[in-house]
Amino acid sequence: MATIPKSERTKARVLREALSLAGSVGFAGLTFGTLAEQAGISKSGLFAHFESKEDLQIQTLHLAEEMFVDRVLRPAVKEARGTPRIRRLFDGWMEWIQSGAVPRGDILTSAAFEFDDAPDGPMRAAVVEGHGKMQGTIERLARQAVEAGQFRKKTDPAQFAFEFLGIVHAHHHARRLLRTDQHARRARAAFDRLLETYTR
Amino acid sequence: MATIPKSERTKARVLREALSLAGSVGFAGLTFGTLAEQAGISKSGLFAHFESKEDLQIQTLHLAEEMFVDRVLRPAVKEARGTPRIRRLFDGWMEWIQSGAVPRGDILTSAAFEFDDAPDGPMRAAVVEGHGKMQGTIERLARQAVEAGQFRKKTDPAQFAFEFLGIVHAHHHARRLLRTDQHARRARAAFDRLLETYTR
Repeated sequence: MATIPKSERTKARVLREALSLAGSVGFAGLTFGTLAEQAGISKSGLFAHFESKEDLQIQTLHLAEEMFVDRVLRPAVKEARGTPRIRRLFDGWMEWIQSGAVPRGDILTSAAFEFDDAPDGPMRAAVVEGHGKMQGTIERLARQAVEAGQFRKKTDPAQFAFEFLGIVHAHHHARRLLRTDQHARRARAAFDRLLETYTR
Repeated sequence: MATIPKSERTKARVLREALSLAGSVGFAGLTFGTLAEQAGISKSGLFAHFESKEDLQIQTLHLAEEMFVDRVLRPAVKEARGTPRIRRLFDGWMEWIQSGAVPRGDILTSAAFEFDDAPDGPMRAAVVEGHGKMQGTIERLARQAVEAGQFRKKTDPAQFAFEFLGIVHAHHHARRLLRTDQHARRARAAFDRLLETYTR
């Protein structure tokens, strides 16, 4: 059985610390200096793993994306195509936000807000790419629901994805700004209505 | 005819500069130092108008809110109660975002995102208060639509407001992250469906 080299284990641990740090101070606050302090590792130790601050931020974003795929997307894809899969995606997303798996709730949404008006650069490009993948995934699920005869034939998958993400964002936003959990109920009601309007 | 004292005119000009600055660097970047430079006024000149950095930020936020009331809310309230008023609010909001009246598109939404995970403090409280007013306004308009017999009797006004704001946020977000205007069309389609589900 292959063992994981120590340097890879160290890097995995450092990336988890980086994710926790990004969760509390934002990706822009994630630097070699702040991470070295948080992870109890020297800056020069970090240079062995990351080429630049942007590289560190992007790898941390990718870790969050991998966690999202593991915990939200993969369980959804195990459901039957169409509305069961879409429902599971939404439910899993809500659970992910509420679980505190990452400190900021939905760190991917936070990253999108954080970099939406940033100058062009590799991290912004990575955030846009991640958003595009998510949009693409939801569109694919919507097309499958059309093929399964559950969504109306004239469904615009991109429109569905826009509205789906809108509910996720509204929940994320209300939860963080108002610091209550009552918005999970509102998000669920909005989602139920969304599905209803596409399936009738 | 009363004339406006010079100090008030200066303050009004400084606040417009502050709003422009908040639009480009965010409210957190709005300090006596950055504003003095942008407005071509001494820091001590600013101290005459603002008690603290928080006071400066809050007064700037209030200016943005006044502009929003003038340009979006007041024209909406001139429409007949019920769906015409709600439609005008939505249309005006989209126009406000696209007009570049303030550099960040919808600076009030930006402020909400910027302060949603900030520690408690006067500026965060002002943002939450502004959000509450907005939510309350939309709820009132939804209740009027029920009274006018346009919305179903069992309408939950807070739920409608949540979904209405969700569309505004989704548009704001997609526009800023993806830097295209195609999302205005998606937001409009989402809004039309929202109204339809509440009125049928």
